[in-house]
Amino acid sequence: MPSISERAARMPASPIRKLVPLANQAKAKGIRIYHLNIGQPDIETPKEGLEALRHIDRKVLEYSPSEGIASYRNKLVDYYARFGIDLSPDQIMVTTGGSEALQFAFPACINFGDDVIMTEPTYANYISFAMQAGVKVRAIRTRIGDGFALPSIEEFEELIDADTKAILICNPNNPTGYLYTEEEMLRLRDIVKKHDLFLFSDEVYREFRYTDAPYLSALHLKGIEENVVVIDSVSKRYSECGIRIGAVITRNKQLHDAMMKFAQARLSPPLLGQIVAEASLDAPQSYMDGIYDEYIARRNLLVEGLNRIPGVYSPMPSGAFYTMAELPIDDCDRFCAWLLEEFSYEGETVMLAPGSGFYIHPEYGRTQVRMAYVLKREDLQRALVLLEKALAQYPGRTNR
Amino acid sequence: MPSISERAARMPASPIRKLVPLANQAKAKGIRIYHLNIGQPDIETPKEGLEALRHIDRKVLEYSPSEGIASYRNKLVDYYARFGIDLSPDQIMVTTGGSEALQFAFPACINFGDDVIMTEPTYANYISFAMQAGVKVRAIRTRIGDGFALPSIEEFEELIDADTKAILICNPNNPTGYLYTEEEMLRLRDIVKKHDLFLFSDEVYREFRYTDAPYLSALHLKGIEENVVVIDSVSKRYSECGIRIGAVITRNKQLHDAMMKFAQARLSPPLLGQIVAEASLDAPQSYMDGIYDEYIARRNLLVEGLNRIPGVYSPMPSGAFYTMAELPIDDCDRFCAWLLEEFSYEGETVMLAPGSGFYIHPEYGRTQVRMAYVLKREDLQRALVLLEKALAQYPGRTNR
Repeated sequence: MPSISERAARMPASPIRKLVPLANQAKAKGIRIYHLNIGQPDIETPKEGLEALRHIDRKVLEYSPSEGIASYRNKLVDYYARFGIDLSPDQIMVTTGGSEALQFAFPACINFGDDVIMTEPTYANYISFAMQAGVKVRAIRTRIGDGFALPSIEEFEELIDADTKAILICNPNNPTGYLYTEEEMLRLRDIVKKHDLFLFSDEVYREFRYTDAPYLSALHLKGIEENVVVIDSVSKRYSECGIRIGAVITRNKQLHDAMMKFAQARLSPPLLGQIVAEASLDAPQSYMDGIYDEYIARRNLLVEGLNRIPGVYSPMPSGAFYTMAELPIDDCDRFCAWLLEEFSYEGETVMLAPGSGFYIHPEYGRTQVRMAYVLKREDLQRALVLLEKALAQYPGRTNR
Repeated sequence: MPSISERAARMPASPIRKLVPLANQAKAKGIRIYHLNIGQPDIETPKEGLEALRHIDRKVLEYSPSEGIASYRNKLVDYYARFGIDLSPDQIMVTTGGSEALQFAFPACINFGDDVIMTEPTYANYISFAMQAGVKVRAIRTRIGDGFALPSIEEFEELIDADTKAILICNPNNPTGYLYTEEEMLRLRDIVKKHDLFLFSDEVYREFRYTDAPYLSALHLKGIEENVVVIDSVSKRYSECGIRIGAVITRNKQLHDAMMKFAQARLSPPLLGQIVAEASLDAPQSYMDGIYDEYIARRNLLVEGLNRIPGVYSPMPSGAFYTMAELPIDDCDRFCAWLLEEFSYEGETVMLAPGSGFYIHPEYGRTQVRMAYVLKREDLQRALVLLEKALAQYPGRTNR
């Protein structure tokens, strides 16, 4: 029997997925689970997108162009213009989710064995895409005590050497909810420019910013136009995770052409999803405003509630719909499993994502969990009650 | 300005894509082009699939499971059973087209720098997926004079060494239309077993077999159950290229689990496409029969017509909807460009795929072209007239 590759063997299984069988067992016992573990919003997809879906009138569901449907890319130009981002349609390549944007950008920019620097905690799947592409990950640590702010230039420069080809940020950040300030974005610009690196900026949570500061995309930064690669997706913006429509954006023509080779090899992004995504761009401002107000209310409820639980600390996130919280526990993997296997209160429990899975050095996240505030407020309220009860009972509780 | 990776720089651009600007210029001049260059069928998508699309009634277009929707995988079990292939749903993983099946299988089975053997001519995108995964390609030549039959065990064994991890076949074959015989499949089984290799079998043209021989999938082979990985897709079967739904199938549990890590990293395959594909499984036998009869008629018309043109030779393909033909020309890239740039007859021309792009050693395909018989019979008839006129005028014509 032939054996699987070393890279596949080394690749970590998703930290949340390990908990899924335990969650299923709990459900089988009749326990209700509040899912704070995943970023699947409960918000409705815009009517405009669903309406377009109902009116698809084609006899052959053909390939779309490898770079995406022209009318959709044209409309995306207007979308980015709303944020003061000036693009042409040929700088936007439609991808199969934000995932594929990284599956193009990593191999197009980075040779086997060269490396990308990412902040940790990080979106765990970045590590998988890097392993799939044979790219090494160097982690730069951000700290809960600083609200997960960007490290200093000096800390970056300790990591940068001849093998370093890129820095990857997620802004607003999954899993921390942190939104980079203007000063931090300029710091990144200076590092990238000085060391001639690519800057990959995952901006799929662009709509979810909770500050009054003017919006700063990596695409706004002057002097590094050829370095910037933006990863985007409609998944969170329009609650359309299932249609798998993202984009990879660069003003670097040579890089665009290189990524087109990968795009052409896989033929085309999903046709039906593009039709829905294009129509969703017509969603009125009231749609986004409604979502925005709801997320602010949820964030405040969750984070203020967390900080009221003895021994728990969460910074106040300024974006996205996640927070990383510090808990008075011995080990997050054990705690998250215990919540599903052993704990229940009035027939209910909560499912959380162990913090360790978001770190390249898992030990840094041993006492943290990520929570997504994608539930209704009354459910979040209840989840807070359950968490407090659980922490009071958990045998591995520590004093913080 | 940072530079792109060496692997991206080395990756060949699609041979057909290079011709697209020339085709656009020809169209701008008012020239009608008969497209024999691509495998986009003109056949209608099954009504059942289109009907399901019109009736999708969801308020949130959520993620589907990483391995694909359970009801779809259950129904696929029945589909494979029609071919005498016995599978369980957990041996079937839904992918974003057949493309993604290879994007999982290559890195899950093969380490960086190790190699996969593929027959040449080959589907050009296999080479791209191998480069993306850092996998080396070793080519074993099949010859037009043999109708592109499978090479001998000895020829395989000349290529196999400690770095060889897999053999990839496409059966029925794109670009040659060749269908492996039982003897050839058993030969492959013996090689794979003896050298403990994975056998990747791309079977997306399963429905398009034009012989009376009993069907032999790689999944039918006894004694190599743990070695076989089947690549599948609904694109050609149901004329649903745009929905991007494929599958990767293996009975090797360890490999399945390894590929699941890649599947989980990209979250999920397209939701809408899965709904269409699932409903399309209900298409009546008359749908497949109609397509089958049409393709046989087209194949006969095209191949018999080709062999009547002086200096042209095409084997009679036993499957898929392509043929590789030998033409009396100096260079296929030049000829295919000339057809678009210089030639027209009564305001019309043909577009063909240069044979060189299907070879790992492009020189072997210098006088060949691939033609897809995905057009109506009257259009194929006309394309044959145009090709004959073109060959009579082409300045690089040779005597064969």
